[in-house]
Amino acid sequence: MSAITIGLLGFGTVGKGVYETISKHQGRLQAIFGKEVKVSAILVKNVSKHSVPDDEVLLTDDFQDIIDLPKLDVVIDAIVGREPGYTYLRQAISRGCHVITANKEMFAFHGSELTRLAKENNVSLGFEATVGGGIPIIQTIKQLLNANKIERIEGILNGTSNFILTSMREENLSFEEALKIAQEKGYAEADPKNDIEGYDAFYKAVVLSELVFGKAPAQGKSVREGITDITIEQIRMADSLGLKFKHVASIEREKDTIRCTVKPVLTGEEHPLYRVEGVQNAVSIDADIVGNISLQGPGAGMFPTASAIIEDLIHVGRGDIPSVFEEGRPEGTVIYEPVWIIWGDADKAELPEGCEIISKVSKEVFIFKASLEAVSLLDTSDLKAYQVLGDYAPAAKENKQVQTV
Amino acid sequence: MSAITIGLLGFGTVGKGVYETISKHQGRLQAIFGKEVKVSAILVKNVSKHSVPDDEVLLTDDFQDIIDLPKLDVVIDAIVGREPGYTYLRQAISRGCHVITANKEMFAFHGSELTRLAKENNVSLGFEATVGGGIPIIQTIKQLLNANKIERIEGILNGTSNFILTSMREENLSFEEALKIAQEKGYAEADPKNDIEGYDAFYKAVVLSELVFGKAPAQGKSVREGITDITIEQIRMADSLGLKFKHVASIEREKDTIRCTVKPVLTGEEHPLYRVEGVQNAVSIDADIVGNISLQGPGAGMFPTASAIIEDLIHVGRGDIPSVFEEGRPEGTVIYEPVWIIWGDADKAELPEGCEIISKVSKEVFIFKASLEAVSLLDTSDLKAYQVLGDYAPAAKENKQVQTV
Repeated sequence: MSAITIGLLGFGTVGKGVYETISKHQGRLQAIFGKEVKVSAILVKNVSKHSVPDDEVLLTDDFQDIIDLPKLDVVIDAIVGREPGYTYLRQAISRGCHVITANKEMFAFHGSELTRLAKENNVSLGFEATVGGGIPIIQTIKQLLNANKIERIEGILNGTSNFILTSMREENLSFEEALKIAQEKGYAEADPKNDIEGYDAFYKAVVLSELVFGKAPAQGKSVREGITDITIEQIRMADSLGLKFKHVASIEREKDTIRCTVKPVLTGEEHPLYRVEGVQNAVSIDADIVGNISLQGPGAGMFPTASAIIEDLIHVGRGDIPSVFEEGRPEGTVIYEPVWIIWGDADKAELPEGCEIISKVSKEVFIFKASLEAVSLLDTSDLKAYQVLGDYAPAAKENKQVQTV
Repeated sequence: MSAITIGLLGFGTVGKGVYETISKHQGRLQAIFGKEVKVSAILVKNVSKHSVPDDEVLLTDDFQDIIDLPKLDVVIDAIVGREPGYTYLRQAISRGCHVITANKEMFAFHGSELTRLAKENNVSLGFEATVGGGIPIIQTIKQLLNANKIERIEGILNGTSNFILTSMREENLSFEEALKIAQEKGYAEADPKNDIEGYDAFYKAVVLSELVFGKAPAQGKSVREGITDITIEQIRMADSLGLKFKHVASIEREKDTIRCTVKPVLTGEEHPLYRVEGVQNAVSIDADIVGNISLQGPGAGMFPTASAIIEDLIHVGRGDIPSVFEEGRPEGTVIYEPVWIIWGDADKAELPEGCEIISKVSKEVFIFKASLEAVSLLDTSDLKAYQVLGDYAPAAKENKQVQTV
């Protein structure tokens, strides 16, 4: 009986999780595939730093050893960074291997090209693990797109930044203190920029944009803003209004372009992302027939991510061939009037046209109506604006401090 | 170009939603199927009470007219009750038609038999719409089951009872007042028994049990309890402990049998179902590799349910043949020690062995540890017990009224 032969790229947290899951659940996989599923080779940077329990597994620092294996059915990409991942996967697809990737940065930049290449070569390309860890976001969106047009996706796509915001609020910590705890717990890297500045969430948002709308977000319509400016005082003030800061990725169509923003926003109790705490990830999907669907679960970690990769592997076993990202919905834009909370002395500031103060919470905190464009013209040396998602009304009505200006 | 020909059983809310969705999104469907998708006939109880915008659609009160159509590709079941739905679908499958059903009661009783029959006849059988309306619960579970064993599912599967509990808490209403509003809003029937006594949720739980564990819940292990006994005083007391009443369906394996309970329980803030309000539905799925995943969305309604049916229709178009419900996980039971809140003078009552009072909230409210079996032996003429799901500890620690006995 011949085996399904896998080449595994990377043996960090995700790579180890995949290897262990395949070993531990071999019986389950054999029942599905009708044959053994076997990791034949693992690519690492430094062979002397790793060991594999099974002597039959080739441990190598040279991708050529893997791509030259006499039998290679599937390549699983568990390394990070645009390169060499892209080059490796191109080679694997060209050889006729199915590929599965957890590499969001690479896939954000080259997903569209790889999908086309996979179709040409009649192989599967799985990328469930690039977004939302173990939450089956990609499959759910594909499923919804069968019947629905998706109008907007909002998501908490980075567990590290959400953990920091949750810790600040719950434990009354400064950003720096919360970041330190995240690093101690292993949620944040020594260099945390990728998470706290929103790069990681933005890569995932790009993957979702390609999947849902058939194209990447427009450069001019895209905003990527981190959470490093948020203070504990702002969190307390938001709290008093019944609002929570969340680092939200939002993807929506505006006429013919896709607007993608990753930035800290304020969510009210009614918003689907309001209750998502700690390292959890979640997405809220607005679709035209079904309405709003939300999914929540573990957005990272060894076994959740491995689970997503194994799910893709089983689609490979079933012979599912991916469709190239398709052009999205033909028309329609959701119109809404953004509400903002602005810190700073807005009474004194010169406000751009289209900014309207709705109410004054304190001398330095204002509630605003303004378009995205008008807010982008505010003088940010004095004023800091955060968009309020969800229904703001309850907080505005109930909070005794709110006065109409 | 021949069309995909559909026979639609029932023209109530769901049937109309399906008909309108197929008409309105014909372009989308044609792009997928490569041909027209056409409702050819509709079965109604009373032909004179209905009209269809398209003269070409046969409106009939005789199923024989439908099953005798010269061309019939798909039968969509949007009627209620075990019969005649079961008989009709058997006939349709035997003729070689694909079938899609939204009829949970029928499918809870005959799903297993129909799945077998569909496999024998090599036709598709879609039942996404039987559970959770527009939320793609069935597909998500199938997807998770690829890689995971599911250990437990908890869900809010009936929007009407959840709406009543939400209204009671938020608007300070009695059960009767909240029910009246639900009826006025069209969420509850004139005879609301099916929803408020938990029958509807139980049918859905049975469908999930068959899907996940490959068998129906054991009779002796099953509990179906309504929400009619819950008082506003109990809701207030729970509130003061940071807990909310939810009408939760829970499905889990216990050795070789499946335990299924539908009953009011108390959820803490950490529980995935705590924030599910109004007519929303949600499920929380515990799986062995990925951990906990939760999904939330519209659990009923014309278009959400139609969306689920159209998703199934597209699987039909792709030629997906269902697998018969498979035998579930081979071993393993999640052990946990249930915590309860008990109303009544537990100090004076004679407690069965295995009941332990943890703390006393007031003269008539106690927090208990007890097994399901021990609690079932309590004298219910004096005492009323509600299980607490999720982490109870924060409420017990923080609430000043709680005293250790």
